[in-house]
Amino acid sequence: MSLLQWLDYAAVFVFAVTGALAASRAQLDIVGFLFLGCLTAVGGGTLRDMILGRDQVFWVADPGMILSACLAAVLVFFTAHLLESRLRALEWFDAMALSVAVPAGVGVALGMGQDWPIVLIMGVATGTFGGLMRDVVANEVPLILKQGQLYATAALAGAGVAVLADTAGGPQWVALLSCAAVTFALRAGSMAFGWCLPVYKSRPPRR
Amino acid sequence: MSLLQWLDYAAVFVFAVTGALAASRAQLDIVGFLFLGCLTAVGGGTLRDMILGRDQVFWVADPGMILSACLAAVLVFFTAHLLESRLRALEWFDAMALSVAVPAGVGVALGMGQDWPIVLIMGVATGTFGGLMRDVVANEVPLILKQGQLYATAALAGAGVAVLADTAGGPQWVALLSCAAVTFALRAGSMAFGWCLPVYKSRPPRR
Amino acid sequence: MSLLQWLDYAAVFVFAVTGALAASRAQLDIVGFLFLGCLTAVGGGTLRDMILGRDQVFWVADPGMILSACLAAVLVFFTAHLLESRLRALEWFDAMALSVAVPAGVGVALGMGQDWPIVLIMGVATGTFGGLMRDVVANEVPLILKQGQLYATAALAGAGVAVLADTAGGPQWVALLSCAAVTFALRAGSMAFGWCLPVYKSRPPRR
Repeated sequence: MSLLQWLDYAAVFVFAVTGALAASRAQLDIVGFLFLGCLTAVGGGTLRDMILGRDQVFWVADPGMILSACLAAVLVFFTAHLLESRLRALEWFDAMALSVAVPAGVGVALGMGQDWPIVLIMGVATGTFGGLMRDVVANEVPLILKQGQLYATAALAGAGVAVLADTAGGPQWVALLSCAAVTFALRAGSMAFGWCLPVYKSRPPRR
Repeated sequence: MSLLQWLDYAAVFVFAVTGALAASRAQLDIVGFLFLGCLTAVGGGTLRDMILGRDQVFWVADPGMILSACLAAVLVFFTAHLLESRLRALEWFDAMALSVAVPAGVGVALGMGQDWPIVLIMGVATGTFGGLMRDVVANEVPLILKQGQLYATAALAGAGVAVLADTAGGPQWVALLSCAAVTFALRAGSMAFGWCLPVYKSRPPRR
Repeated sequence: MSLLQWLDYAAVFVFAVTGALAASRAQLDIVGFLFLGCLTAVGGGTLRDMILGRDQVFWVADPGMILSACLAAVLVFFTAHLLESRLRALEWFDAMALSVAVPAGVGVALGMGQDWPIVLIMGVATGTFGGLMRDVVANEVPLILKQGQLYATAALAGAGVAVLADTAGGPQWVALLSCAAVTFALRAGSMAFGWCLPVYKSRPPRR
C-alpha cells in the first residue's frame, strides 16, 4: 500500500470517528452514526476526485474504505459514553483527520501534475469539506468558522509546505509528511495555546 | 420505459412535491417552488451519477425529468393551501419518494456491476440527499436527523434486501420492488407507530 | 479572451467579493476570507462543469481564476471597514455577480448544444449555487429564500431571454448580454423598488 493510500485510509477512519461523535451529540441511532461517519469520512476526498476528474472516486475503486469508516462509527457508538467531553474529542480527532487529509489531497493533485494553485486548493478542500459537511448536516457551527482559531490556515500552510518541498525536488514522502506535521502543529497549537491570526474587526457594529 | 426509468421519474415527481411543500412553508413565490422542487427532485440522483461517473447525469440525458419536477411544483403551488398540515404531508410524500429513490440508486449501481458496499451507499445516498439538500437550504432540521425515527435505517434496510435478492439471483424487478416495499414499510411504520432503533444516550449531559 | 471567459472571470471576482464580505461579517481571519471568497467564487461554475461533464472544471483549466478570487478577498479584507453597511454591499455585489454568472452558465450549456430546459437550469444553477453555499456555510439565511424578493426569478428570466434570443438566431453575445441585463434589472429593481411576485400565503397558520 502506497503512502498516499495509507493517508486516504487514515483520513477516512479518523474523519469517520468525528462524524460518529457528531452523531452521538445529536443522539442518533446506529445507522445515524454510520451515515454521518461515512459522509464525513469520504466527503472531502469525493469532492477532490470529482473536481480533478479522476477515473473513479477513491472509495468506489476501493470499497474497503467504506468498511473502515463503518468500523470507526461502530466503535464510537459503543465507546463514546466513556469520553468526558465528546466535543473536545471531536475537535482533537478532527485535527488529526485534517492533518492526514490535507496531504492526501495534495498528493493526488501533485501526482496528476496540477499547477500549484490547484494543488493548494485540493489540499485545503480535501482536508476541510468532510468536516464542513458534517457540521452543516448536524446543524453545528462549522469548526472552520470558529473565530480566533487556525483551521483553514493550518490546512493552507501545510499544503504550502508540501508545494515548496515538491518544488525543491525532494522525494514525495518528505513533502507529504512535512505537510501533515505543519498542519497538525498549527491546528493543535491553536487549540492548545490559542495561536491565531488577527481577525477582521469592523469599526461599526455588525450590519 | 424500463422499471429503472420509471423509478427515477417517480422519485423526481414525488421529491419535487416535497420540495415545493418546503417552499410553501417558507412562503416563497412560484419560482421559489420550482427551485426547491427541482433541487430536491434531482439532488440525490445527480450525486449518484456524478460519483459513479455515468456518461450523463440522468436529467441531462432526459430533460423530461425537469419538466415533470416543474409540473409537481406548480401543482403544489395551487393546492398546498388545501392541506391541513403541510409538514405532515411533506413527511409522507418524503417517505414515498425515499421508497422509490432508494431502488433507483440501487438499480443503477447493480447495473454497473458495483460491489455490494457501493450498491448500499448508492441506494442510501440517492434516497436521502435530495431531501437533505432541501432541508439544509430551507433551514429546517433534516428529517434524517430526527431522533427516534427510522430514516437512513429504512433506506439501508431496503438497499440491503435488494442486494440479497440480487445475490440470490432472481430477476431485477423483484429486487427493486422488495427494496421499495421494505423501505416504505419501515419508514411508514416509524412515522405511524413510532418504530425505532435504540438511540445513543450519553450518561453525562451533552458537552 | 472570449466573452464567455470574461463572464466567468467577472463572476469569480465579484462573487469572491461577496464571500469575503460574508467572512467579514463572521469576523474571520485572512485565510477565512480566502476560503469563503474562493468557495463562493467557483461554487456555481464548478457544479455546472461537473453536471455537464466538461473535460475540466473551469478553474482547474485556468488557475488564474483562483488568483483573481484571492485578489478580491484580500482587497475586501483591507477595505471592508470603510463600508457603511457590509450587508447592503454584499447584496448589491451579489446582484452583480448573479448577473454575470447566469449568462456564464447559459453560454456554456448553449455551446454544448444542450436542450432548453438544461440551458435554463444551468443558468440558474451557475448563478445561484455559489451564493447559496456561501450563505449555508456562513450560517446566514440564503438570499434566495428571502421572501418577497426576485432572486431565482431574476436568474430564470435572464436565462429565458437568452434561450429566446438564441432560438431567434442572433449572435451569441446579444443573447448573453441581454441575459445579464434582464437578470440585473429584475434583481436590482426588486432590491431598490420592492418588485416581487405574489408569494404563497397559507390560509391556516404554518404547521
